[in-house]
Amino acid sequence: MTQDLKQTRQNAADNPVTLLGLGAMGTALARTWLAAGHPLTVWNRTASRADALVAEGAKAAATAAEAVAASPLIVVCLLDEASVTEALAGVDLAGKDVVDLTTGTPAQARARARWAEERGARFLDGGIMAVPPMIGIPEAGGYVFYSGSRALFDAHADTLSVPAGANFVGADPGFASLHDVALLSGMYGMFAGITHAFALVRGEADIKPTEFAPLLKGWLHAMSGAVDGYAERLESGDYTTGVVSNLAMQVAGIPTFLGTAAGQGVSTELLTPFFGLMERLLGEGAGAEDTARAVDLLAGRAGAATA
Amino acid sequence: MTQDLKQTRQNAADNPVTLLGLGAMGTALARTWLAAGHPLTVWNRTASRADALVAEGAKAAATAAEAVAASPLIVVCLLDEASVTEALAGVDLAGKDVVDLTTGTPAQARARARWAEERGARFLDGGIMAVPPMIGIPEAGGYVFYSGSRALFDAHADTLSVPAGANFVGADPGFASLHDVALLSGMYGMFAGITHAFALVRGEADIKPTEFAPLLKGWLHAMSGAVDGYAERLESGDYTTGVVSNLAMQVAGIPTFLGTAAGQGVSTELLTPFFGLMERLLGEGAGAEDTARAVDLLAGRAGAATA
Ligand SMILES: NC(=O)c1ccc[n+]([C@@H]2O[C@H](COP(=O)([O-])OP(=O)(O)OC[C@H]3O[C@@H](n4cnc5c(N)ncnc54)[C@H](OP(=O)(O)O)[C@@H]3O)[C@@H](O)[C@H]2O)c1
Ligand SMILES: NC(=O)c1ccc[n+]([C@@H]2O[C@H](COP(=O)([O-])OP(=O)(O)OC[C@H]3O[C@@H](n4cnc5c(N)ncnc54)[C@H](OP(=O)(O)O)[C@@H]3O)[C@@H](O)[C@H]2O)c1
Repeated sequence: MTQDLKQTRQNAADNPVTLLGLGAMGTALARTWLAAGHPLTVWNRTASRADALVAEGAKAAATAAEAVAASPLIVVCLLDEASVTEALAGVDLAGKDVVDLTTGTPAQARARARWAEERGARFLDGGIMAVPPMIGIPEAGGYVFYSGSRALFDAHADTLSVPAGANFVGADPGFASLHDVALLSGMYGMFAGITHAFALVRGEADIKPTEFAPLLKGWLHAMSGAVDGYAERLESGDYTTGVVSNLAMQVAGIPTFLGTAAGQGVSTELLTPFFGLMERLLGEGAGAEDTARAVDLLAGRAGAATA
Repeated sequence: MTQDLKQTRQNAADNPVTLLGLGAMGTALARTWLAAGHPLTVWNRTASRADALVAEGAKAAATAAEAVAASPLIVVCLLDEASVTEALAGVDLAGKDVVDLTTGTPAQARARARWAEERGARFLDGGIMAVPPMIGIPEAGGYVFYSGSRALFDAHADTLSVPAGANFVGADPGFASLHDVALLSGMYGMFAGITHAFALVRGEADIKPTEFAPLLKGWLHAMSGAVDGYAERLESGDYTTGVVSNLAMQVAGIPTFLGTAAGQGVSTELLTPFFGLMERLLGEGAGAEDTARAVDLLAGRAGAATA
């Protein structure tokens, strides 16, 4: 063991973790802290789910209260907000550092932060940008958005970085969730596009999905660069300089998309809302503008037309 | 001049091109053929748009018929199908090789192929996966899908590869358009997701669009890998083995997405159709399955539920 590694193991040994929730995600998190040498106390509503982890060195607590008492750092990874409320009802959190990785809305995270502070705890909310198989595999690129108490984050940054990268995005406890939901929303839009694209070629025996896939993936990769263009235009407020494909041209192409879907027997339901948004913008006089303008229309902000 | 380069210039000199249409795209294409040394005859409805190209070495024809007569290879890049019909009405195409890069549906491409063959021409349809600034810049990664006459494609592959990469996708003249529309449909889905994501953070003064952009782009890049998973499941018909995030779990997360949008004052119109599709699948008993199953539901194919 090198001196550095010895020091790292010692740091881990000095930083015990309590984890509430041993679902798919909690179990993946638990394994990384055990492997890194952190003393780990776990609790799960269904106690048997702790058995394998206990065999790997974890301590199982009989109740959530007992688990919370065991460590200064409490990580919560339960199904939803209701399960957090239920699991922590009546549990003494005074002096604890509570990190909630349970998925929820920004409003729920802010309410949970107030709730924790009222109970004398510091609070950090987290949004996990990974699926369980990516946890503990740095090359997989998964990470966690954190927001809330910067002091808590700084005190436990090493420990929190064990399962996946840690990205602090602000003191507002709602910001981790907001970033999380925004990225996943973008992903669902992309999935909708992928679904429509595959549906279009689904009926063609001569187009193999696995031959079509690299073309679609390559195109999405290339076009995801548009994100930077959106950001620059949103920040500068300039939707007209150097527009490559303006709204009028894009709206002119809509019949080709709808006609192709109809010809292939594919429902257009996934594409029509975005086309509708572009048509509304065109109606407001934004024909010469970049599609980034649609962001303000969707966000209900004034000034979506500068004809 | 090296021997190879001399040979290439000689080949270009021996392969004249006629181009109909000098809009943004046609003009970009024209410049690459001129630069490569192809004798180029151009025609445009508004004759003055040819002036700059004539100064660079092109020959301007007074009529479309005269332009067509000038070369064995005729490339058409006009606004839409109606403009192609109008421009080529009564023009003698016998013995010509006609390549139509005008955007349209697969059905329009197939009809145009029959129309051209009836007039004694070989026909190839094209779908341009690039914007004009990418034409003639190999590093930009743009390319053109071609389908229809393989003999035409083989005879002119070198010439057709001058403006951008050439990808032949089948003898069915509708396949170039189908690939084109499918990739662009996927892109519009992604743009819808990007629009929603930016709209969610639009009202937050503490989240700068240009700081948010690399997070969103990185996530979309990483998640575009899902395309391969879709293709494998569609090909194997196996929607249940090794599912990482099943439909039931994803549907359970929908309120978080809708609630976050509501909290940020953002319309949910771009996301609800995909969520609706997932909910319908769940209702059909696909809760344990991968979301790739949604493709068959959208394509109106039987067997979308295997509960
Ligand atoms: N899995 C992913 O891909 C992923 C990715 C990012 C974020 N997340 C988030 O991580 C969190 C956990 O996800 P998961 O995949 O681990 O879910 P999961 O496998 O379904 O596990 C759910 C956990 O919540 C517990 N639970 C449910 N209701 C409870 C209640 N009323 N009281 C106490 N405990 C309760 C369950 O305990 P029992 O064992 O007793 O049922 C179990 O430990 C969720 O918020 C999820 O959104 C998951
Ligand atoms: N620009 C892009 O980003 C892009 C990308 C991929 C594919 N495409 C496709 O490429 C094709 C051309 O696009 P573009 O950007 O060059 O369009 P554009 O700049 O609007 O040019 C349109 C061209 O069509 C001609 N035209 C229109 N109606 C006509 C008619 N009735 N008879 C004869 N000519 C007519 C115009 O002639 P006048 O000069 O006389 O008006 C002009 O040459 C379209 O099908 C487009 O979908 C474009």
